[in-house]
Amino acid sequence: MPKKVDHDERRRHIAEAVVRIAGRDGLDGARLRDVAVEAGMSLGSVQHYFASKDEMLRYVVHYLGEHVTERIMAGMCSPAVASASPVRSFLLSMASEMLPLDARRRAERRAGQAFTALAVGVPELMKDLGEGDRWLRERVTDLIVQGQRDGELRAGLDPRLESVALLAMLDGLGSELLLGLRDPEEALSAVRYHLDRLAPG
Amino acid sequence: MPKKVDHDERRRHIAEAVVRIAGRDGLDGARLRDVAVEAGMSLGSVQHYFASKDEMLRYVVHYLGEHVTERIMAGMCSPAVASASPVRSFLLSMASEMLPLDARRRAERRAGQAFTALAVGVPELMKDLGEGDRWLRERVTDLIVQGQRDGELRAGLDPRLESVALLAMLDGLGSELLLGLRDPEEALSAVRYHLDRLAPG
Repeated sequence: MPKKVDHDERRRHIAEAVVRIAGRDGLDGARLRDVAVEAGMSLGSVQHYFASKDEMLRYVVHYLGEHVTERIMAGMCSPAVASASPVRSFLLSMASEMLPLDARRRAERRAGQAFTALAVGVPELMKDLGEGDRWLRERVTDLIVQGQRDGELRAGLDPRLESVALLAMLDGLGSELLLGLRDPEEALSAVRYHLDRLAPG
Repeated sequence: MPKKVDHDERRRHIAEAVVRIAGRDGLDGARLRDVAVEAGMSLGSVQHYFASKDEMLRYVVHYLGEHVTERIMAGMCSPAVASASPVRSFLLSMASEMLPLDARRRAERRAGQAFTALAVGVPELMKDLGEGDRWLRERVTDLIVQGQRDGELRAGLDPRLESVALLAMLDGLGSELLLGLRDPEEALSAVRYHLDRLAPG
């Protein structure tokens, strides 16, 4: 009986190969052919799932976005996080998952950067990038509003500008970590320090 | 009588050509040959000043660093800035000059990014990058200490972490501006908002 190949499973398998290449060699010179070798598939099979490198990277970024979201959610559901400051815990968990603090997250960020570099000048990909950014910014804004309503965060904060500031900080720390200009402990200290000041009093 | 060519002047002339290319087409595919055309010089003349693209970009980054510093200083000496909050004014001026808020500063940032991309994996260039980063971080830390001593900034701030946080924020906003994810007014509002909270209660 022929084995039924799960379409989504194959795409995820290819995405993982892309992340490994990103972490090891970067994606600048990577071709679909290299991805096929890494994934242990023929070029034709990879092309069956992705017609171009653009399309593949676009999928990888969505895939990683879901992956990171799942990890944040899993972190949130651990007993340690059922805390008196759920918004702070969530933002800290988000920061930890977004920052390139270990090999896996460095590879993820490199894949994201490769996508961003590719997206410049390609309206369809820039639209993706803009939507992802807006989605994240709105979620963080909503969380800050929630924290204010529940008395966990200062009433005087401007939720929209706090969201812009925090996401910019994480973006910058991410680049600096990747370049080795900050180490993980220093980056996390800066995030914790910043989140502390959002609390009342 | 042969015209005496000022060595530094020629290097600055070439650096300006590099910045124009960065602003227009990016530097990814740019070769010394393209820089020569843009500068209106022969390839041999450009090579007389810079043996390689690495060496040229290294000079350009130093040149731009001095340029930005000069602009910050000029901004500081304007009558409007002789204010009751010199540290805040300085940091805001620094942010305005570092962020890609107009065509010139976008070109400068693109040149900086090209240098950074080139520096990855090249110890000599990474050392440059690390030194530039440390220099800036220490200057901002010192300024925050000064602001605290003079009562302009909150006594409770951690100067080192404030410096890391502010520079990360500017780094992130810079990338986001270049990608069109933020507009100049939004980015500056976030910076002003952030600086406001450093002032005493």
